[in-house]
Amino acid sequence: MKSINEKLRAAIRERNSLVCVGLDVHPDRMPSPLSKDIEGILAFNRAIIEATADLVVAYKPNLAFYEALGSAGWDLLRKTVEMIPKGVMTIGDAKRGDIGSTAERYAAALHNLGFDWVTLSPYLGYDSIGPFVGQAERGAFILCLTSNPSSRDFQYLESGGKTLYAHVAETASQWNEKGNCGLVVGATHPDELALVRSLAPDLPFLIPGIGAQGGDLDAAILNGTDQHGEQAVINSSRGILYKSSGPDFADAARAEAQKLRDAINEVREKKRSKK
Amino acid sequence: MKSINEKLRAAIRERNSLVCVGLDVHPDRMPSPLSKDIEGILAFNRAIIEATADLVVAYKPNLAFYEALGSAGWDLLRKTVEMIPKGVMTIGDAKRGDIGSTAERYAAALHNLGFDWVTLSPYLGYDSIGPFVGQAERGAFILCLTSNPSSRDFQYLESGGKTLYAHVAETASQWNEKGNCGLVVGATHPDELALVRSLAPDLPFLIPGIGAQGGDLDAAILNGTDQHGEQAVINSSRGILYKSSGPDFADAARAEAQKLRDAINEVREKKRSKK
Repeated sequence: MKSINEKLRAAIRERNSLVCVGLDVHPDRMPSPLSKDIEGILAFNRAIIEATADLVVAYKPNLAFYEALGSAGWDLLRKTVEMIPKGVMTIGDAKRGDIGSTAERYAAALHNLGFDWVTLSPYLGYDSIGPFVGQAERGAFILCLTSNPSSRDFQYLESGGKTLYAHVAETASQWNEKGNCGLVVGATHPDELALVRSLAPDLPFLIPGIGAQGGDLDAAILNGTDQHGEQAVINSSRGILYKSSGPDFADAARAEAQKLRDAINEVREKKRSKK
Repeated sequence: MKSINEKLRAAIRERNSLVCVGLDVHPDRMPSPLSKDIEGILAFNRAIIEATADLVVAYKPNLAFYEALGSAGWDLLRKTVEMIPKGVMTIGDAKRGDIGSTAERYAAALHNLGFDWVTLSPYLGYDSIGPFVGQAERGAFILCLTSNPSSRDFQYLESGGKTLYAHVAETASQWNEKGNCGLVVGATHPDELALVRSLAPDLPFLIPGIGAQGGDLDAAILNGTDQHGEQAVINSSRGILYKSSGPDFADAARAEAQKLRDAINEVREKKRSKK
């Protein structure tokens, strides 16, 4: 049986795309034809998924946006994951991290929602990761170097000549026994992306931070993909979802996803031809 | 207007208790008279709260246990928070941590549930904390040194002569401008509790890890409370909730909470009389 890391590589090849669409829905940003309630948001997610599914390798709902809508938001999230076609990966961006017995319940919650992958925080160490990586067919992207400005508060602290995020990258590589660990590394840190790639040459990276957050796309691809120009998932949320606020929102999202996929593939081609 | 840290101090004095009951509910552990479904668990929480409310200063539901029950679990959590009497603090143990725009949605989600306090992970730095500490009447306990065995994976890394958890303690003290930051420090690290208390003399501590996790209660009180024997909340979950699996479960939980409160207050008295 293939591990989830191998499945991701196969999906990237088959779909020829590194694009991940972050389904970070906000009622206030629903385009004009849709209502701002749960039904409207579900219709929005359906339209976005139908318009972009052949262009992407993954969808990544961030749980915060659903939890803010209460229990109906939790149902909305479950229905959204169900709508994602087979063959496209699903990433539950939850950034959970708790002691072992509690991490098991978080793993159950995210398993029930049907996600292939989750994102996890490393602060509590292996206890908080173990329950999510016990089976090769489900994986975890572990926060390594995040895309936000205050990532510098702690992640750059140096210990024994290595930053905290480098320690996390090396430790996560050791946790990858079943081929189901990955790392979150922000596109807003292009040089550090190259360093983390050298520390974890085979791990898949989830790379947020392009678009609204200002990360450098070309550098993210060149430095963040593996030697084959693979094993990286480039996330865009707001830049795709809310490209148009009018009735053409789904077409506009599709055009934006296609533009991103093609721009990424051009850089991947350049990287491969240089080798 | 009083900050939430001041309100916690007042509640500790008025109720003469540092006890926090962790409402970490699991269907498989419901006592014999109750069903293992949502209705049964709601009845369980009601019975536990009614039996212990006069003995405690706080209740702390960990969100994992509710999320594992799906959208009905989210409703159960909201109803549980509503049942907690005014004057007893509510702590949403969520350990969230995300970039600024997402942290705002997590803050909305936890605000909607009605919590006075939340727990947060520091890995992403201030961006992930700011949206929770903007108003003095709501607070955040920030993970500093956690109670689990693999807390050693990263929290003990030394940078500039100080461990990561010490950096977090000092930084959280700087974030405490509005009097609404606290720290999570596990009772399983009694010596480190004294160090963290010296670094953050006035911050409230949420101290898990006694009971099932094996932390030392006396050392936790002596080292974890402030100079007045206050500003610490000692959590017990399984040890109180599941003391009896029979029809006397609520009475057994009350007896256990009372025993814990009295044992804690005896050590506090000893600490105060030594001064």
